[in-house]
Amino acid sequence: MNRAHAAMLQLWAVEGFPEIRGGNNLGRTIVESFTANQFVPADGDVVVVAQKVVSKAENRVVNLATVRPGASAEALAAETGKDPREVELILQESVAVNRHRRGLIIAEHRLGFICANAGVDHSNVAGSDEMVSLLPEDPDASAHRIRDAVAAAFDSQVGVIISDSHGRPHRNGAVGVAIGVAGIAPLLSYVGLADRYGYLLRRTVEAVADELAGAAGLLQGQADEGRPVVLIRGARFATDGVGAAELVRPMEEDLYR
Amino acid sequence: MNRAHAAMLQLWAVEGFPEIRGGNNLGRTIVESFTANQFVPADGDVVVVAQKVVSKAENRVVNLATVRPGASAEALAAETGKDPREVELILQESVAVNRHRRGLIIAEHRLGFICANAGVDHSNVAGSDEMVSLLPEDPDASAHRIRDAVAAAFDSQVGVIISDSHGRPHRNGAVGVAIGVAGIAPLLSYVGLADRYGYLLRRTVEAVADELAGAAGLLQGQADEGRPVVLIRGARFATDGVGAAELVRPMEEDLYR
Repeated sequence: MNRAHAAMLQLWAVEGFPEIRGGNNLGRTIVESFTANQFVPADGDVVVVAQKVVSKAENRVVNLATVRPGASAEALAAETGKDPREVELILQESVAVNRHRRGLIIAEHRLGFICANAGVDHSNVAGSDEMVSLLPEDPDASAHRIRDAVAAAFDSQVGVIISDSHGRPHRNGAVGVAIGVAGIAPLLSYVGLADRYGYLLRRTVEAVADELAGAAGLLQGQADEGRPVVLIRGARFATDGVGAAELVRPMEEDLYR
Repeated sequence: MNRAHAAMLQLWAVEGFPEIRGGNNLGRTIVESFTANQFVPADGDVVVVAQKVVSKAENRVVNLATVRPGASAEALAAETGKDPREVELILQESVAVNRHRRGLIIAEHRLGFICANAGVDHSNVAGSDEMVSLLPEDPDASAHRIRDAVAAAFDSQVGVIISDSHGRPHRNGAVGVAIGVAGIAPLLSYVGLADRYGYLLRRTVEAVADELAGAAGLLQGQADEGRPVVLIRGARFATDGVGAAELVRPMEEDLYR
């Protein structure tokens, strides 16, 4: 665990990040953007990359005109008032519908994340309103490729987070969360440590990857000035995680499914 | 909305923040700690203060030995295996129990927040394991007092967030969230703005106060090195909010109650 910079955290957003198209080498593009911004990633830094550019680079963009909705999609579309072709993609991407109502489908993506539309999203996709993006096939693997590109270019070991913006039960507004990680354990446990009065902490596990993704979200923005790549220095995290699946609460422990 | 520093965000944790006791003037203590740390808050900065020190300053600490559990508390304690006196406080603090199971009560606090134990917490309270803290009576008012103290001392208009650490449905690990605000609108809306391809954003509202609280959480820690006060520079936010209640999803829109 790196504790050296624990009292200060700095985040920089890459300016002028180029348009990403299918097949682009995203790791190389990120390395080039760091160089253009005079960012030199150091050991222990964290690179947060918005899911949207990862999906684009990995050709996870679909033209709704090519989608033929099945009977289940037609039925759920009728119930929710959503485009049946979009609902078809949501069902293809997910293993279960968690909640739905007019205008909203909350689904369990096959990666385990429970989120609106199973990550099928219209915004920030080039072309037309008919174009939507899907989540990357394997966001941890996407993060590892970026991590390797940064290591090769700068000889530094960074953590990489693929971030998305999720709504939450109970609370208004979306926040950035981690859907893929490399070189960073998404959870930091305080269990068994003593608080300042010697009280042994029994349950405190902090979702540091989500807090880092949320912090990056403050710079990434959503509208036309979007900045998909953020470099973070000073975060404390463990490096022995197995992937973003650690952030998914197992079904049997989740009181909200 | 301040956009000047949108591409860089900096967070500093106050070191050596003193032990807070009931009746302490928290605003003055924070001002003194900024001076001791050579922090000079500027217009548009955000000060994040952990709920625990606010509760202590406001005498929101209870000795369980003084609590007489009622029949409802005894029944829920038997079901959950929790201390009946703690359950009594949870019920007093909340308007409804949202979910419960062995070892866990998720309740709707009278302020609207749905969280474990309605905010009744053992950790980081001096005295003994019998001492627990409750949430501040009015965290927005607590935030306003701190904001006024900072304005008087430094002639600067800052946003203030009272933060707590909440677990979430569906995802493992807790993250920092805002339970009180002053001088900052907790939500930032992109609705009606165009994305980089001209697609009109229809639903994008970002819970910036929660992202800021989560970012501060990365520095605050939980164990004996806890740092309850964090100064953030470079965040983009609106200043016209009405309070942290904006972060609470209304019952009729919440699919998880």
